[in-house]
Amino acid sequence: MRGASAHDVLARAAALGEISEEPGRLTRRYGTPALARAADLVAEWMEGAGLAVRRDAVGNLIGRTGGDGPPFVLGSHLDTVPNAGRYDGPLGILVALAIVERLTPGGTPPRRPLEVVAFADEEGTRFGTAYLGSTAYVGAFERDWLDLVDDDGITLGEAILALGGDPEAALALPAPELAGYLEVHIEQGPVLEREGRRVGVVSAIAGQTRVRVVLSGEAGHAGTVPMAARHDALAAAAEVVLAVERVGRSTDGLVSTVGAMSLAPNVGNVVPGEARMLLEVRHADDDVRARAAEAIRGEVERIASVRGVDASWTLRYDTPAVELAPDLRRRLEAAIEAAGDQVRTLVSGAGHDAVVLSRVCAAAMLFVRCAGGISHDPRESVDEADVAAALDVVERFVRELSF
Amino acid sequence: MRGASAHDVLARAAALGEISEEPGRLTRRYGTPALARAADLVAEWMEGAGLAVRRDAVGNLIGRTGGDGPPFVLGSHLDTVPNAGRYDGPLGILVALAIVERLTPGGTPPRRPLEVVAFADEEGTRFGTAYLGSTAYVGAFERDWLDLVDDDGITLGEAILALGGDPEAALALPAPELAGYLEVHIEQGPVLEREGRRVGVVSAIAGQTRVRVVLSGEAGHAGTVPMAARHDALAAAAEVVLAVERVGRSTDGLVSTVGAMSLAPNVGNVVPGEARMLLEVRHADDDVRARAAEAIRGEVERIASVRGVDASWTLRYDTPAVELAPDLRRRLEAAIEAAGDQVRTLVSGAGHDAVVLSRVCAAAMLFVRCAGGISHDPRESVDEADVAAALDVVERFVRELSF
Repeated sequence: MRGASAHDVLARAAALGEISEEPGRLTRRYGTPALARAADLVAEWMEGAGLAVRRDAVGNLIGRTGGDGPPFVLGSHLDTVPNAGRYDGPLGILVALAIVERLTPGGTPPRRPLEVVAFADEEGTRFGTAYLGSTAYVGAFERDWLDLVDDDGITLGEAILALGGDPEAALALPAPELAGYLEVHIEQGPVLEREGRRVGVVSAIAGQTRVRVVLSGEAGHAGTVPMAARHDALAAAAEVVLAVERVGRSTDGLVSTVGAMSLAPNVGNVVPGEARMLLEVRHADDDVRARAAEAIRGEVERIASVRGVDASWTLRYDTPAVELAPDLRRRLEAAIEAAGDQVRTLVSGAGHDAVVLSRVCAAAMLFVRCAGGISHDPRESVDEADVAAALDVVERFVRELSF
Repeated sequence: MRGASAHDVLARAAALGEISEEPGRLTRRYGTPALARAADLVAEWMEGAGLAVRRDAVGNLIGRTGGDGPPFVLGSHLDTVPNAGRYDGPLGILVALAIVERLTPGGTPPRRPLEVVAFADEEGTRFGTAYLGSTAYVGAFERDWLDLVDDDGITLGEAILALGGDPEAALALPAPELAGYLEVHIEQGPVLEREGRRVGVVSAIAGQTRVRVVLSGEAGHAGTVPMAARHDALAAAAEVVLAVERVGRSTDGLVSTVGAMSLAPNVGNVVPGEARMLLEVRHADDDVRARAAEAIRGEVERIASVRGVDASWTLRYDTPAVELAPDLRRRLEAAIEAAGDQVRTLVSGAGHDAVVLSRVCAAAMLFVRCAGGISHDPRESVDEADVAAALDVVERFVRELSF
C-alpha cells in the first residue's frame, strides 16, 4: 500500500521538502502560504488513508479514525526553521501516516480511535515562541500570545485570522482527553550513529537554562593602550566561553554552550569594550542543570572581578526537564527488542511537542538515527533502512496497544 | 595675542568640534562639506596670523610664511573618525597656528620659511586608506587610489573633483624639499597620565601586523551534540584570544589584540560553526613584532589541530616601524628640559602623518597627555595646562631652530 513503506515515507518527505516560502531553500514558518500548501498535501494523504481530516483554530491539521473516545495520538510538526532539512518534524507526521495505512488496510478503521496530528508551529521561528501548535491542541493557548509580532509587524492574532483560523476559538479550546502520544523524530545528535543504533527511546527531554551575559570592559586604541592597562571585554568573554565548556564537560549528559556573541565596537584596531553572549545549559536532571548554571555564574563573576570588567547575568528562561511516560517507554523498548534491535535509551537535548503533550497524557518519543547528528540544515539526512526500523517498531508498539 | 595661549587653542578646538557632518556628534570625513567648513575656519585663522593660505590638489590646507626655500612644517590632520573627540588631529594644527602667532607678532615673518599644514585625510574613514592627505603632500599619491569607493559608491577621484581638487594634479605633485616636520598629537594612551608627565617625545611609530583568522568547526544543535563530539569554533577562538593576550603580555612594549570577531550562525541554541577574527600586533621593533606574530600563528595552528577545526591565516597588512629623526628628538628633549619638565620618551602605537612625512624629511612628534588615554571618542580630553606646556616646548624647539 502506498505510503506504508520507508521508501514512500522518504518520497513524501522529499515532496514536502519542495514546498517552501523561498526558492532554493526550505523555509516553512507558521501561517505562511507554504505551510498551508504543505498541510493541503498532507491532508490529501490523510484522506487517502481513510482519515477524517479537520483543521483546528490555529491551523493544526488533524486526521482521525477509529470512532469516539480519547484517541491515541501520533504526530509531529510541519513547520520548519529557515533553510531547514526535510526531516525535522515531517518525518514524525509521515511515519504516523504510514502506520495508519498499515493498521487500516483498505480503510478498515482500527479498534480504537487514533489521531495523526501535524502541528502548525513547533519551531517558533516567526513569532519567537515555541510549541504554539501543540499548546493550542492541548487547550493551553494564552491570550497574551495574540499580541506577539513577527518581523513584518504582523501580530499572531492577525496571522491566525489570515490562515482561516480563529483566535477566540483557539483560546476556548479545552484540554483534550487523550489515550497517549507518540512522536517519532530524528535524533538531531550523533549518539545513535556513533553507537550503531537505528532507533532510540527517549527517556526525558532536558530542561534548559538560557542566560544573557554582558561583559563591559573598557574600549581603547589597540595600538596605544598597554596590555597591563586593558580591561578587554573579549578576553574576559574568552575565559567565560572556556569555563562554560569546562563545566559542560565535567558532568555526564550535561551540555553547555555559548552560541552567540557580539562585540562593541568590533573593529580591528580597538580593544573590545563590550561582549554580549547568549549561553545555555541543558540536562535531564534539573538539579544537575541548576548546579551547572550556578557554577558558570560563579566563574563569570570571578573572571569579571579578576579582570576589572562588569558582568551582568540575565536569566532568559529556565524550563524544567520532562520525563516521558515510563509505561510507554517500556512498551517502546519491548517493540525494539521484538524487532531484533538493541535498546538504546537517550535524553533529548532538544525540545519537542512531546513536552507539551506530556501535560495532558502519557507521552513517548522514538528517535531515528540521522547522518552526522546534523539538523536545522539542508544536509539533514536519514537512511531508508532506519526509517523502516522505526516503522517496524512503531507498528509493533501500536498493535500492542490493541489497535 | 589671540590664539597664542593654551586657552585660545582649546577655544578654537571647541569651535572646530562644532563643525560636523552629523547633528549631535563630531564626524568630519574627507571631502565632506563639514571638512570644507572646518578648513575655511582654519584658513581664516591662518590669514589672521599673517600666513599665505593655499589648498593643494587633494584639499590639504597650507599656510606659509618666511619667504622661499624648504620650509619647516608644523601640522596634523583636520579630518576625524565618526563620533570623534575634538583633539585627535586638530590639536596639532592649532598648536602650530599658535606657535606661528607667537613667532611672528604683528605679522613680522620669521627668519626662515614655515608651513602650517592641515591634512585633509589621515583617518581614512571614508575611503578605507589612511594618510591620503599627507601622502599627496609628499608627492606619493597613487593612481590606483582614485578608484577607491566610499559607502555611497562615490570614487575618491570623484570626491576630489567635488571638493574643488584635481586628481591629475595630485598625481603630478613632486616630492617637496622640507627642512623638517613636527607634529603635536594627543597620546591616545594612558602612559603620560599614569607617570604624571604633561608631554612626551615620540621615539618611533610602531609597525603593525594585521591578520584575518577564520576558524571553521562544526555547527550543531546545542542541545543534542554531546560536549565530546563538538568542534566548537567559538571555543577554539576563545583559546586564540587568550593566546594573543598572553603573547602581548610576554614582551615589553608589545601590544596584540583581537578587536573584532563574528560568529556563524550566532544563535543561542547552535554550537558555533565558524568564528572570524581580526587580530593585530604592534611594536617599535619589527623583529619583535614578527616573532610575536609567528608565535600567535603557531598557537592558532596548535589550537586548531587539538580541537579538530580548520584555521586560515590571511595577512591583511604588515607595515614596518618608523624611527623618528634622532636630531629632532634630541632638540625636543632639550626643549622639554628647558621648560622644566622631565623627559619621557615613548613609542606611538597609533599611526600618524609623521610616518609619511618621515619619507621626505626629518620628522618628530610631541605627545600631549590626554584623560584616561581615551581617543576616537567624544570623551577625548586634554588639560589646558598640558597644552600650555606643549606650546612652551614647541616654541622653544622652533626658536632653537633659528626661526
